[in-house]
Amino acid sequence: MTCKIHERVHALEDRLIGLRRDFHLYPEAGFTEFRSAAIVAGTLEALGYAVRLGPSAMDRSAMMGVPKKRELERRMERAIRRGADPGLVGRMRGGLTGIVGEMVFGTGPVVALRFDMDANEIDESRDEEHRPAREGFASENPGVMHACGHDGHMAMGLIAAELLAGMKNELTGTVRFIYQPAEEGVRGAAAMAAAGAVSGVDYILGGHIGFKAVRSGGFICGTDRFLATTKFDATFTGVAAHAGAAPHEGRNALLASAAAALNLHALPRHGKGDSRVTVGTLTAGEARNVIPARAVLKGETRGETSEIDRYMFDSAREVVAGAARMQGVDWAVEITGKTGSGQSSPELAGKLKEIAGTIGYFNPDDIALGTHMGGSEDFSHMMTLVQDEGGLGTYFMIGSDITAGHHKASFDFDETCLAPGVEMIVKVVMELMKEGINFSSKNSESDFQIDQ
Amino acid sequence: MTCKIHERVHALEDRLIGLRRDFHLYPEAGFTEFRSAAIVAGTLEALGYAVRLGPSAMDRSAMMGVPKKRELERRMERAIRRGADPGLVGRMRGGLTGIVGEMVFGTGPVVALRFDMDANEIDESRDEEHRPAREGFASENPGVMHACGHDGHMAMGLIAAELLAGMKNELTGTVRFIYQPAEEGVRGAAAMAAAGAVSGVDYILGGHIGFKAVRSGGFICGTDRFLATTKFDATFTGVAAHAGAAPHEGRNALLASAAAALNLHALPRHGKGDSRVTVGTLTAGEARNVIPARAVLKGETRGETSEIDRYMFDSAREVVAGAARMQGVDWAVEITGKTGSGQSSPELAGKLKEIAGTIGYFNPDDIALGTHMGGSEDFSHMMTLVQDEGGLGTYFMIGSDITAGHHKASFDFDETCLAPGVEMIVKVVMELMKEGINFSSKNSESDFQIDQ
Amino acid sequence: MTCKIHERVHALEDRLIGLRRDFHLYPEAGFTEFRSAAIVAGTLEALGYAVRLGPSAMDRSAMMGVPKKRELERRMERAIRRGADPGLVGRMRGGLTGIVGEMVFGTGPVVALRFDMDANEIDESRDEEHRPAREGFASENPGVMHACGHDGHMAMGLIAAELLAGMKNELTGTVRFIYQPAEEGVRGAAAMAAAGAVSGVDYILGGHIGFKAVRSGGFICGTDRFLATTKFDATFTGVAAHAGAAPHEGRNALLASAAAALNLHALPRHGKGDSRVTVGTLTAGEARNVIPARAVLKGETRGETSEIDRYMFDSAREVVAGAARMQGVDWAVEITGKTGSGQSSPELAGKLKEIAGTIGYFNPDDIALGTHMGGSEDFSHMMTLVQDEGGLGTYFMIGSDITAGHHKASFDFDETCLAPGVEMIVKVVMELMKEGINFSSKNSESDFQIDQ
Amino acid sequence: MTCKIHERVHALEDRLIGLRRDFHLYPEAGFTEFRSAAIVAGTLEALGYAVRLGPSAMDRSAMMGVPKKRELERRMERAIRRGADPGLVGRMRGGLTGIVGEMVFGTGPVVALRFDMDANEIDESRDEEHRPAREGFASENPGVMHACGHDGHMAMGLIAAELLAGMKNELTGTVRFIYQPAEEGVRGAAAMAAAGAVSGVDYILGGHIGFKAVRSGGFICGTDRFLATTKFDATFTGVAAHAGAAPHEGRNALLASAAAALNLHALPRHGKGDSRVTVGTLTAGEARNVIPARAVLKGETRGETSEIDRYMFDSAREVVAGAARMQGVDWAVEITGKTGSGQSSPELAGKLKEIAGTIGYFNPDDIALGTHMGGSEDFSHMMTLVQDEGGLGTYFMIGSDITAGHHKASFDFDETCLAPGVEMIVKVVMELMKEGINFSSKNSESDFQIDQ
Repeated sequence: MTCKIHERVHALEDRLIGLRRDFHLYPEAGFTEFRSAAIVAGTLEALGYAVRLGPSAMDRSAMMGVPKKRELERRMERAIRRGADPGLVGRMRGGLTGIVGEMVFGTGPVVALRFDMDANEIDESRDEEHRPAREGFASENPGVMHACGHDGHMAMGLIAAELLAGMKNELTGTVRFIYQPAEEGVRGAAAMAAAGAVSGVDYILGGHIGFKAVRSGGFICGTDRFLATTKFDATFTGVAAHAGAAPHEGRNALLASAAAALNLHALPRHGKGDSRVTVGTLTAGEARNVIPARAVLKGETRGETSEIDRYMFDSAREVVAGAARMQGVDWAVEITGKTGSGQSSPELAGKLKEIAGTIGYFNPDDIALGTHMGGSEDFSHMMTLVQDEGGLGTYFMIGSDITAGHHKASFDFDETCLAPGVEMIVKVVMELMKEGINFSSKNSESDFQIDQ
Repeated sequence: MTCKIHERVHALEDRLIGLRRDFHLYPEAGFTEFRSAAIVAGTLEALGYAVRLGPSAMDRSAMMGVPKKRELERRMERAIRRGADPGLVGRMRGGLTGIVGEMVFGTGPVVALRFDMDANEIDESRDEEHRPAREGFASENPGVMHACGHDGHMAMGLIAAELLAGMKNELTGTVRFIYQPAEEGVRGAAAMAAAGAVSGVDYILGGHIGFKAVRSGGFICGTDRFLATTKFDATFTGVAAHAGAAPHEGRNALLASAAAALNLHALPRHGKGDSRVTVGTLTAGEARNVIPARAVLKGETRGETSEIDRYMFDSAREVVAGAARMQGVDWAVEITGKTGSGQSSPELAGKLKEIAGTIGYFNPDDIALGTHMGGSEDFSHMMTLVQDEGGLGTYFMIGSDITAGHHKASFDFDETCLAPGVEMIVKVVMELMKEGINFSSKNSESDFQIDQ
Repeated sequence: MTCKIHERVHALEDRLIGLRRDFHLYPEAGFTEFRSAAIVAGTLEALGYAVRLGPSAMDRSAMMGVPKKRELERRMERAIRRGADPGLVGRMRGGLTGIVGEMVFGTGPVVALRFDMDANEIDESRDEEHRPAREGFASENPGVMHACGHDGHMAMGLIAAELLAGMKNELTGTVRFIYQPAEEGVRGAAAMAAAGAVSGVDYILGGHIGFKAVRSGGFICGTDRFLATTKFDATFTGVAAHAGAAPHEGRNALLASAAAALNLHALPRHGKGDSRVTVGTLTAGEARNVIPARAVLKGETRGETSEIDRYMFDSAREVVAGAARMQGVDWAVEITGKTGSGQSSPELAGKLKEIAGTIGYFNPDDIALGTHMGGSEDFSHMMTLVQDEGGLGTYFMIGSDITAGHHKASFDFDETCLAPGVEMIVKVVMELMKEGINFSSKNSESDFQIDQ
Repeated sequence: MTCKIHERVHALEDRLIGLRRDFHLYPEAGFTEFRSAAIVAGTLEALGYAVRLGPSAMDRSAMMGVPKKRELERRMERAIRRGADPGLVGRMRGGLTGIVGEMVFGTGPVVALRFDMDANEIDESRDEEHRPAREGFASENPGVMHACGHDGHMAMGLIAAELLAGMKNELTGTVRFIYQPAEEGVRGAAAMAAAGAVSGVDYILGGHIGFKAVRSGGFICGTDRFLATTKFDATFTGVAAHAGAAPHEGRNALLASAAAALNLHALPRHGKGDSRVTVGTLTAGEARNVIPARAVLKGETRGETSEIDRYMFDSAREVVAGAARMQGVDWAVEITGKTGSGQSSPELAGKLKEIAGTIGYFNPDDIALGTHMGGSEDFSHMMTLVQDEGGLGTYFMIGSDITAGHHKASFDFDETCLAPGVEMIVKVVMELMKEGINFSSKNSESDFQIDQ
């Protein structure tokens, strides 16, 4: 059967690549994936999956960093212009672009597969050397680009969904496809989880093209040390005044923000693990000779554990408040993204290692049990929820030669990794749904550390 | 004769206002006053003035805060599109938009009159209550607006030039019209002075509509305590890096700029007089999760004397350098504007007071000898050069009801002040050119202080 | 009579210098002038003055920057050991060392003379070149020294009191001697004023040896631009923690104080006049490897007007509060000294100018009407109170060659200035008490500016 | 034989405790351990050890944070007054208080034992509840106290030396006692290593009473994650000036130090592991109203690896330099202590675990293979040097009930732990010197991590 899977995937490879290129052509930023999600929802529905979308797939109150209403509306119009089903798009109003598609194959474990859909706010390269430009599938949406491979993720998911839908007789249990918006900025997972996306899940898998298993042929089965993170915008509002004649009539928001930036970076660190705090951008003031009345800084905290991130963020908030008081200005801190720490379940990663070994594409020497994340991904939020309920989860990485770093304007990946990725996904689901599987136990205490 | 002047001005009032509204319709920011300057040059030439423009009117090396080449070219094209003489515009390439027009009436004193031409980078109000919008002369140039009255200044100058040109028999000496670009940001006077605009001048007058003599009917004859000022941009260039995975590989330009902003404001003040330092805007960073590689702050120093401003600016430069070193980033400080301190000559202000009393429009109770400036104007640069050579200078203010503060989107002024302004200018020139005038002495030591 | 005064003073010159040297030998810092004050009180009483001391001379609640109780007690013991009257010292318990001595010569104006008594917390030089050391009157009190000439002030006052006491027949009105503690740090005047020291005063005079009229033979009759000032201690209290193992358990008082120091200096300045803010000392932390739990900074604000100083101090307090919040530490701000702005009455200064011209010691070319203070002295508090009630006041400076700057360990002054100083004081009091004096008017509005 | 060791140690327990109490009575701070070292040297010499002291035991150029010459001299005098051998003390001039004592028992491995000698700069409690006070062995040296147990370490070493000296026939190899000064502040190890203290060493052991194995009966066999650390003093030297009259004439060292403190804490962290930076103390300024001309801050950096600490310290130095430049002040950074990271050799820790199990005093449940250090100890410097040459090292912790945290004024430990400590040391040396030992290999690559 394993061979048959390989052949079946192979037969669909052109369509797989075509799907990826279509998504690449029309990239959509976080919470505006109206066209992408409409395609996903339509496809899953056509395959027989029970599809949830809109409010039944996402809890509006848990969404973070949502674009302004007007922006959302323009993006809905664009999606429809690009051929998306207006009915489906209409149900996603407000940026509710998450999709859940589920198929039940009888009693058995619930296996969830999570894919991310959003693109990056980058202008794609138009260089001849950049294949998407040369071959005509570079972004048609100015200022947005799939520079992180989520186009490939979506495509793999849909082909895997098609293959699994045709295996009714070979499977027992439930397979659930979770298509998440706004992974960039860790903004979307919480809202889907809050609406029940991972309820009842026994196994959850997520993954990524490229990253640490960068070379084509590599595969990493699990990831630990996802950093917990909180993204925030701090706004300072003061009073403008003429800098020469009446500085005392002003309230200086720029100085408050500068003091905040410095003191945020100077926060005492947590003794129990690594932490980060970064002010990534700062924009303040209106004119050279006016006491600045407004300043905005965009920052983030991170922590080796969720507790450490919470300590860092809570401290950061006080720094903002104190800096504002120093200058007598008003302040506000808005959370625009947030996820907890996490680590893959070692048993599940081990299972993936076995399966990866059966796939010819992967170079045996380049199949690794695990790696450190060293960054943040809100898959960790879903994975931890599943693990907290006794389930298992893992985050894998599919090696792929890339032409530039992730999030760069000339990023592209080696599409030959897509088919083996689908094969891997399908085989893992099959394996987990096989009767009698017993390596997992809801009672096992996971203290997996990849670096052991 | 005084009566005759009044009548002659009155007869030209409609044209005066029309000129002002034409300038208002097509406002041009500093160093892009191509259309305005072409009109000025063409008009003066037609009246018989010897006109200098381009390199003969401005020393390119002394220009500060000049827009980028491409911006200048687009503005030249716009000026021509708006009907400016292409030949004249072509001679102003590079932003050399200053104009000097001179007429000699025989041996006698050289009287210079300085007008500023630039508009503000503001979107003009389109409210029905805003007369320029209601009456159809609001700015046609998006993002630029005459919100400081320079349109009125230019118009008064041209009508005064016309009147004086017709007084050959009544005058003895030389009258010189100086039309200066880029007064906003104190960027243009130095380049005109460096090209000789005030060489040989015995008397220099400049003035402004509105400001401290805000009410229509008011007139202030002289101004002291022009603050010396230096405008500067400080740029910090570091190295970007991923804020989660490799912050140590970055060099943080944002933190350097924040430290600079704070420490600039914390500079020890000068014991010998008032000083100011302001960081008006700060823009830093590219993305929330990237160590910021670039930051720019726009600031200014001011001083009660030029020496104090120099102390403040020199200290500011060291703060920038030190802040950069703290973060291991590169730095640059560019001076984008600069002028010295200054004060009007009391004898000349006294002369204006006498003359203002002869003009019916001005309310005798609202004619003041002097006021404090409390701000900066690069007329002080020209005035001080004239005074240093033994000449006299003064800066007057023509009262005018205004609809909003200077530099506001709904700024407008009471055009009834324009004609009396022209009358005042013409009469002062006539008085200064009268034979036998002796209140001025190149040897008199000026220690005028308005507040005595 | 003028001649006679000169001769009488001359006859007492040795005693005058002896008194100064005795005070110099036993210097006492602010609010610990127990021996000095006991001598003053005893002498005035013996001369027939009505003497108020202790609570009747000082309002305890208005004292600022008072030493700790234990310190006060040790200083009382020292004073008694040095020969002070234990009864008098006992009445000054708590640092109530101010003395008021008054003598009534019939109906007439009330003339107050104010002298300061405190020494500086400096170790006096023991160099052979330092005359007090060489001639054996250098400080016997370690760590305290008369380095500002208050020893001379006290001596002049006592001799003047003696002379005036003997002029019953020549005078009409009341003369009041105010001996103030704790002028350094502007801590003592408010408490004496609050207890009525300047109530009912028509003329008040205070002065200083040296300063701007530095050379012997010089005399300055009035002073303006006393800067209003507030002295304060800011204390930050956090939580200590091991800097390596558990920094997050600490609350960093040092960082709060550092942020406060920077942001205090960065306060937006007042547009209506000069201001200052200085953090003079900062002491924080316990050990290199412990999160610092305590920090203290000593600072001051100043303003050209009392309003500006109030703005600066109120802003400073908010900076301290905000800096504390940034680090989650507790804070307190204690005012340790405070005085308002002030300026001498020009009529009174003019009167002094006339009188100074009659004293041979003063070089006519070196007698000046006035000068700027450029610093703070809490005499301005008393003077302004008198002026607010329609009285007149002035602050004079008696030129004296000095061997080092004020407040230096090798400071000494030329004692030949003392006798002319006494002569001046006596003559001014006589002149002000002469019948028919009419240059002063309680209704005259004083807008004296020395620099006119 | 094991039994016999126990009995022999037991027989010496009173002397052991007596020694500890004698050291406790006369504590000496880092580099002033003249009396302690003289006792150590004299004792070892008397036992037959070859003793190196003075320049042959310490390389003067590698000493860090050495007290001033005058302080050293006063401490030498005190030591002699307290009965130390003047000849020995004289050879330690300059603070060269390290002692190396070696005994050769024939061919075999070289086993080094390191003990630290310095006390803390703390006033010892005089409370009745504090046993040293109650029983009369509290510190006789004001301001110095053995509050970290080094008195116990020294005593254990001397008794162990006595026992081992008597085992000529049972041992083969070399035993080397290293008595190190100035462990506090990690200042002394480098100078002893530079003079060859660990040259040729095959096994090195160091240890501590209390800490993580706090309870009596506990024992920890090895320690990893010694943080690399650099201790430094940064000095800023500016120019004083009157804060009211002439702030521009000053150069503000306090502001430079405050900016440095903030920006030190704000240093970008290293992505490859944990780091710390702390400014523990800051002292700046002379008087409230004087621009501060001098500031000193005492700080430290730490890193999970020596490379990270080097990154932090190098960055810190630039912050100091930049902060100084911002204020135009001079700066200096002096390293006052420094050690690298380190981790115990797991094979050696394992060997200790076996041996600890044979000692009845230790509770089997409280014998742990390892722990994280989470702090710094310059034993790591010596241990790493030994490991780099292929040797093995470990740092053990002897449990002991303590009455207060280390470095507290009421710190005391349970002396019953001393004898088992000696027994442990002796047995380990015996075991390592037994013929045929083969668990160690100079070629084994150690990647021990305690937490595995």
